[in-house]
Amino acid sequence: MNALAELMAFQRETSALAQVAGRLNWDQETMMPRGAAAQRAEESAAMQAVLHGRRTDPRVAEWLEAAQPGNAVERAHIRDIRRDYERTAKVPVALARALARETALAQGVWAEARARDDFAAFVPSLTEVLRLRREEGAALAEGGCVYDALLENFEPGATAAELSAMFDALRPRLIALRDAAMGAGPGLEGRFDPEIQLALAREVAVAFGYDLDRGRIDRAVHPFSSGSGDDVRITTRTDRADPFNCLYSTIHEVGHACYEQAIDASYGLTPLGRGVSMGVHESQSRIYENQLGRSRAFTGWLYGRMRDRFGEFGVASEDAFYRIVNRLHRGFIRTEADEVQYNLHVLLRFDLERALVAGDLAPGDLEAAWNERFAADFGYSVPCASKGVLQDVHWSVGLFGYFPTYSLGNVYAGCLYSALSADVPGLEAALARGDPSPATTWLRDKVQRHGGLMRPRELITQASGAAPGEGPLLDYLEEKFGALA
Amino acid sequence: MNALAELMAFQRETSALAQVAGRLNWDQETMMPRGAAAQRAEESAAMQAVLHGRRTDPRVAEWLEAAQPGNAVERAHIRDIRRDYERTAKVPVALARALARETALAQGVWAEARARDDFAAFVPSLTEVLRLRREEGAALAEGGCVYDALLENFEPGATAAELSAMFDALRPRLIALRDAAMGAGPGLEGRFDPEIQLALAREVAVAFGYDLDRGRIDRAVHPFSSGSGDDVRITTRTDRADPFNCLYSTIHEVGHACYEQAIDASYGLTPLGRGVSMGVHESQSRIYENQLGRSRAFTGWLYGRMRDRFGEFGVASEDAFYRIVNRLHRGFIRTEADEVQYNLHVLLRFDLERALVAGDLAPGDLEAAWNERFAADFGYSVPCASKGVLQDVHWSVGLFGYFPTYSLGNVYAGCLYSALSADVPGLEAALARGDPSPATTWLRDKVQRHGGLMRPRELITQASGAAPGEGPLLDYLEEKFGALA
Repeated sequence: MNALAELMAFQRETSALAQVAGRLNWDQETMMPRGAAAQRAEESAAMQAVLHGRRTDPRVAEWLEAAQPGNAVERAHIRDIRRDYERTAKVPVALARALARETALAQGVWAEARARDDFAAFVPSLTEVLRLRREEGAALAEGGCVYDALLENFEPGATAAELSAMFDALRPRLIALRDAAMGAGPGLEGRFDPEIQLALAREVAVAFGYDLDRGRIDRAVHPFSSGSGDDVRITTRTDRADPFNCLYSTIHEVGHACYEQAIDASYGLTPLGRGVSMGVHESQSRIYENQLGRSRAFTGWLYGRMRDRFGEFGVASEDAFYRIVNRLHRGFIRTEADEVQYNLHVLLRFDLERALVAGDLAPGDLEAAWNERFAADFGYSVPCASKGVLQDVHWSVGLFGYFPTYSLGNVYAGCLYSALSADVPGLEAALARGDPSPATTWLRDKVQRHGGLMRPRELITQASGAAPGEGPLLDYLEEKFGALA
Repeated sequence: MNALAELMAFQRETSALAQVAGRLNWDQETMMPRGAAAQRAEESAAMQAVLHGRRTDPRVAEWLEAAQPGNAVERAHIRDIRRDYERTAKVPVALARALARETALAQGVWAEARARDDFAAFVPSLTEVLRLRREEGAALAEGGCVYDALLENFEPGATAAELSAMFDALRPRLIALRDAAMGAGPGLEGRFDPEIQLALAREVAVAFGYDLDRGRIDRAVHPFSSGSGDDVRITTRTDRADPFNCLYSTIHEVGHACYEQAIDASYGLTPLGRGVSMGVHESQSRIYENQLGRSRAFTGWLYGRMRDRFGEFGVASEDAFYRIVNRLHRGFIRTEADEVQYNLHVLLRFDLERALVAGDLAPGDLEAAWNERFAADFGYSVPCASKGVLQDVHWSVGLFGYFPTYSLGNVYAGCLYSALSADVPGLEAALARGDPSPATTWLRDKVQRHGGLMRPRELITQASGAAPGEGPLLDYLEEKFGALA
C-alpha cells in the first residue's frame, strides 16, 4: 500500500471510533442510567485518549509527508488530516484526557444544578472546565489569540474580530426591529398532549427529508443532533403548553441531521464525511426551522395538521396562526427565542465567554454578569439560574467558541435563502402543501452533499453567488417582521 | 509508578473501552437505525481492533514480567491479565478484525433470515463466521482441541469431555422425568397487554434486587444482559398470548444483571470486575428464574399481582397457577422451554456445534441436522427455521462454545440452591410475600460480590460446600416435577 492509502485506512478507523465516541455522548443524554455518570466519565476519557493517541500517531506525520494526492478530493483529505494532526499534536495527552473526564462529570453537575436552580453548585465544575480549556487554547494559540484558537475548533478560518464586526452591524437593526414589532398579538392558549406533539414532530421531520431508516428521534433535556453517515440521531423535548418548542426544535435538528445524511456517501468515514463547520451546520438547521418552517406558506399547512391532530385549539385562521408562530415575545430561553431576538441571546453569550476565556471574568461572577447584561439587552430581569446562566449545556461540556457560530449560521442562512428564493420556482406553493422538498433539494445540491470538500466561506460564496454578509438576513427579517408589526 | 500500578492503569482504560464496545452491541440490538448496519460493522471492527491492540501491547508483557503482586487480589489480577494476554497474542489482529466485522454483518443477515424463515439466506454468513472462528480456535489450541479452546472463552478450565460426561448423566433422568410429567394440566388462555406485562416485569425486576439507577430495561428480539459495574442493562420481549415469556425472561436477565451489579465496587474496571464465567453467570440467572421465580411460594404471590394488573384471567387458584407456570409443554424454543426440557435443547446445540467446529458438519447441512435431531429428542418436527435452527442469535455472532455453559449453569444452580435452602431460614415465607431478598442476599454474599477473584469451580465449591455435580439439580427437578406429574 502507498502512503496515501495507508493514511486513509488509518483515518477511516479513526473516523469510525469518533462515531462511537459521539454515540456514547448521545447515550449519556438519552439512555444512560443516572447512577452510571462516574463510570461513564472514565469510559469517555478512555475513548478520548484513544482518539487523541491516533490523532497524534507519529505515523500520520510520515504518511502526510509521503502522500501524493491525485485529485481535489484527495487534496482535501490531506488538508484536513494535516490541520487536525498539527492542532492535536499541540495538546498534551494528559490534558485531553482531563478535559474528557472533567466535562463528562461537569455535565452531570450542570444538569443537577439546573434542576435545583443553583448556579453556585456548578461554579467549581465550570472553573475546572474553563481552566483546562484555556490551557488547551493557549497550547493551540502559541502566543496568538486564545479565543480564536478555540473558535477554530468550530469554524475554521473565522476570528472573533471579524465576527464582532458582523455582530456590531446586526445589533442596532435587530434592536430597532424588536422594539417596533414586540408584542403584536396574542400567544397560544391551551394544553397539547406530548405524545401527539411527538407524533406530529415525527411527521414533520419526515416531510423535511429526515431518513428515519438511518436515524431516530428520542427525548433529551437539550435537543441535539449526533452522528454522521448512516446513523444520524436527533433528540427533542416536549412542553404541554408550547407545542412549538417540540415542533421547531425538531425541524431545527432535522436541518442538522439532513445535512449529515445528504453528504456524498463516498465521503463516509473520511474527513470530508461530516458538516464542514458549525456555522454552515447552523445555516441548515436555521433555514429549515425559520425561513422554511416559520414561513406563511408552511405554517398554513401546519395549522391544518395541528387541527387534525389536536382538534380545535382556539386559533381562528391561518393568518392568526402565522402571527402566533412568529410572535415576538418576552422570554429568557435562547432556544425558544423568536428569529429577531435570537441573535441578541447569542451576542450576550459571545461577549461573556470571550471575557471568561480572556480571564477578565471569573466563573463565580458569571451569573451576576449574565443577569446584568440580560437586563440591559432585554429590559427585564432573569428570575432564576435555569432561565439564565444555566439554561445551555455548552459551557458545562467545555464548548467555548461555539456560541457565535449560531449567529454566523443565521447570517449564512440569510445568504442562502436569498439565492434559493430566486432560484427555485414554486417554492411557496409546495410549502403550502407541507412539502419543503424544492428548497431542501436545492440545499442538498448546493451545500449539503459537498460535506467538507470546500472551506466554509468558499462553500457559502459558491452556493449563494456572493461573499457572505449580514445584509440578506437583515433584509429578510425586516421585510417579514415589518409586515407583522 | 511501579510496573503493577502502570499495568493496572492501562488495564483500567482497556476495561473502560470494553464497556464501550459492549454498549455499542447493546445499542445495535435496541436502538440502532436499520440502515446503519454496514457503518456499525466498521465501527465495531474499529473498537475490536483497538481492544486487540491493547491486549497484545508488548508493554503488557514487560509489566507482567516486572509486576510484584502483594496480596490475593493483585495475584488474581495478574493471573487474569496474563491469561488474557497470552490467549489474545495468539490471534492475529487481522483475524480479530475480520471476526468483528463479519459477526456484526452476520447478525443483521441472521435477523433478516429469521424474519423470513429462510435458513439458506443465512448459510453464507454462517459459513464465513464459522471459518473465522475455527481459524481462531486453531490458533488458540496450538494443536490441542479446537472446541475446548473456544469453550475456554466462556468457561475457563472446562473441557468438552468433562461436560459431555456430565450431560450424559443428565440426559436419561431428564427424559424419564419429561415422559412422566408431560402434558399435566391446561395452559394459559387469553391476551395480556404488552405494556402491562412490561410494567409488571419492571416491578418484579426491582423485587429481585435489580438497581434501575444503575441499569435500564428495553425491548429486543433476544433478551440479554449487558455491561458491568454501574451501567448494567437488560432487555426483554413481549408476547400477547404468553406473559410468562416477558416475566421469566426478565427475571432471568435480572439474575445476570444483579450478579454484575453486586460485584465488589473496588473491582470495578479491573479483570475481577465482571462475572467469572458464563456458567456461573447462568447459575445466577437460572436460580433467580427457576428455583426462586417458579417456586410454589413466589408464584403464589405472582398470581395475586397478575390479577391486580390484568384483572381476572381465567385461573382459579394459586395451585392451578403454579401448575401452569411449571407445565411441561411441547415447544420449539429454548428460551421458552420448561426446566426439565431446557437442557435437552442445550444438549442438541452442544452436539451440533461440536460437529460444526470439528468440520464433521457443513453449515449448509445444519438445518437438516437440527431438524433430524430435534425430532429424535422431542418426538415431533420443527415447522420452520425461526422455530428451529434460526431461533438463537449465538452462532450468528460467532459464539461457539457458549451453549454448554447454559446447562453447566443449571448444574451449578442446583448445587447452590441445595446449600442455600439449608442455610436460609424463612425463605418460603418471604417468597410468598414477593420478597426473594433472603435468597438473593445469600447469593450476593456467597457468589456475586467475589466477581472474578476465584476460579469458577473453586467459587461454586466454596459457596455450596461440595464439588459441583449434576446430582442436586436432578434431585430438585425430580422432587418438584414428580409431585406435579
